[in-house]
Amino acid sequence: MTHTIREKHKLLARVRRMKGQVEAIERALENEAGCERVMHLIAGVRGAMAGLMAEVVEDHVRMHLVDSEKHPGALNTDAAEQLMDVVRTYLK
Amino acid sequence: MTHTIREKHKLLARVRRMKGQVEAIERALENEAGCERVMHLIAGVRGAMAGLMAEVVEDHVRMHLVDSEKHPGALNTDAAEQLMDVVRTYLK
Amino acid sequence: MTHTIREKHKLLARVRRMKGQVEAIERALENEAGCERVMHLIAGVRGAMAGLMAEVVEDHVRMHLVDSEKHPGALNTDAAEQLMDVVRTYLK
Amino acid sequence: MTHTIREKHKLLARVRRMKGQVEAIERALENEAGCERVMHLIAGVRGAMAGLMAEVVEDHVRMHLVDSEKHPGALNTDAAEQLMDVVRTYLK
Repeated sequence: MTHTIREKHKLLARVRRMKGQVEAIERALENEAGCERVMHLIAGVRGAMAGLMAEVVEDHVRMHLVDSEKHPGALNTDAAEQLMDVVRTYLK
Repeated sequence: MTHTIREKHKLLARVRRMKGQVEAIERALENEAGCERVMHLIAGVRGAMAGLMAEVVEDHVRMHLVDSEKHPGALNTDAAEQLMDVVRTYLK
Repeated sequence: MTHTIREKHKLLARVRRMKGQVEAIERALENEAGCERVMHLIAGVRGAMAGLMAEVVEDHVRMHLVDSEKHPGALNTDAAEQLMDVVRTYLK
Repeated sequence: MTHTIREKHKLLARVRRMKGQVEAIERALENEAGCERVMHLIAGVRGAMAGLMAEVVEDHVRMHLVDSEKHPGALNTDAAEQLMDVVRTYLK
C-alpha cells in the first residue's frame, strides 16, 4: 500500500522544501527577527503543509479506497473529486 | 444520490440546532452583549458546522464513492476510516 | 464594552445573511439535494462565519485592548494590524 | 521589537522539535511508509505549528500591542486574554 515512485518523488520534494522553511523560522528566531517576520514564516509553513496533506489525501483516495485491480471502475471518480474539493477547502 | 431517511433526519436536526445558535448570535448583538460573549457564540456555531460537515463527508464516503450494489465489497473500509480520521482532525 | 451602533448594524446584517444560508442548507436537505450541493452550502456558511469572527475580533482589538480615553495613542496600530493579518489568515 | 531571551529559547526549542518532525515525514516517505502513517505524521506537525503560532501571537499581544514603558497599564489584560482564547481555538 505504498505510493507510486513518481508520487514519492513529488512528496519528498515538498517535504524537503518544508524543512527549508522550518529552518528559516529557526534562523529568524536566532537572528532576533521581529514577531511579524516570524508569524509570516509560520503561516508559510502552514500553507506548505496543507498542500502536502492535500496531496497525500488525494493519493490515498485514488489508490487505497478501492483496489482497482480487484474492482476496476468501482471508484466513482466524480464523487472522489467532490470529496477532494471539500478537503482542499478545509486544508487551506 | 441522496441520503438515507435516517441520515436525513439526523442531519436536519443538526442544521436546525445550528440555526438556533445563529439566532442566539443575532439576539446577543441586538442586546449589546460584549465581544467576549459574541466570540464565544460564533466559536460554538463553528464547532457545530464542523460536526455537520464531518457527518456529510462521512455519508458521502460511505455511500457515493462506490456504488455498493454494482461493486459490493469494493470500498476498503479501513482506508475509508483512515480518511475520515484525517477529515475530522482538520474540521475541528 | 459594547460595539458602536455602526458596527452593530454591520454585524447584524452579516448574522442575518448567515441565518439565510443555514436555512438554505435546511431546505437542501429537505429537498433531498445531493451531498455535493450540501457540502458546498456548508462551506459557504463556514466562510461567512470566518468573516464574522474576523470582524468581531477586529472590533475587539481596536476597541477593547486599550481604553483609548484613558490611554490615548497607547495601542500600536501597526502591531494591531499585523495581528489582524494573522487572525484573518487562520480564520479563512 | 524582539522577543525576550527566555521566550526566544522556548520558541527555538519548539521550532527544532518541529524540524525533527518534518524529518520523520521525510524518512517515512523514503521508507515507503503507508499513507496512514504519513497522514498521521503531517497532522502532528500541524499541531506543533499551531502551538508555535499561538505562542508567537501571545508574545506579540503581550509585548508589542502596547509599549508598556511609555503606557504602563494601558493593555486591558482581560480583553487580551479573551483574544488569546479565540486565537487558540482557531489555531487548533
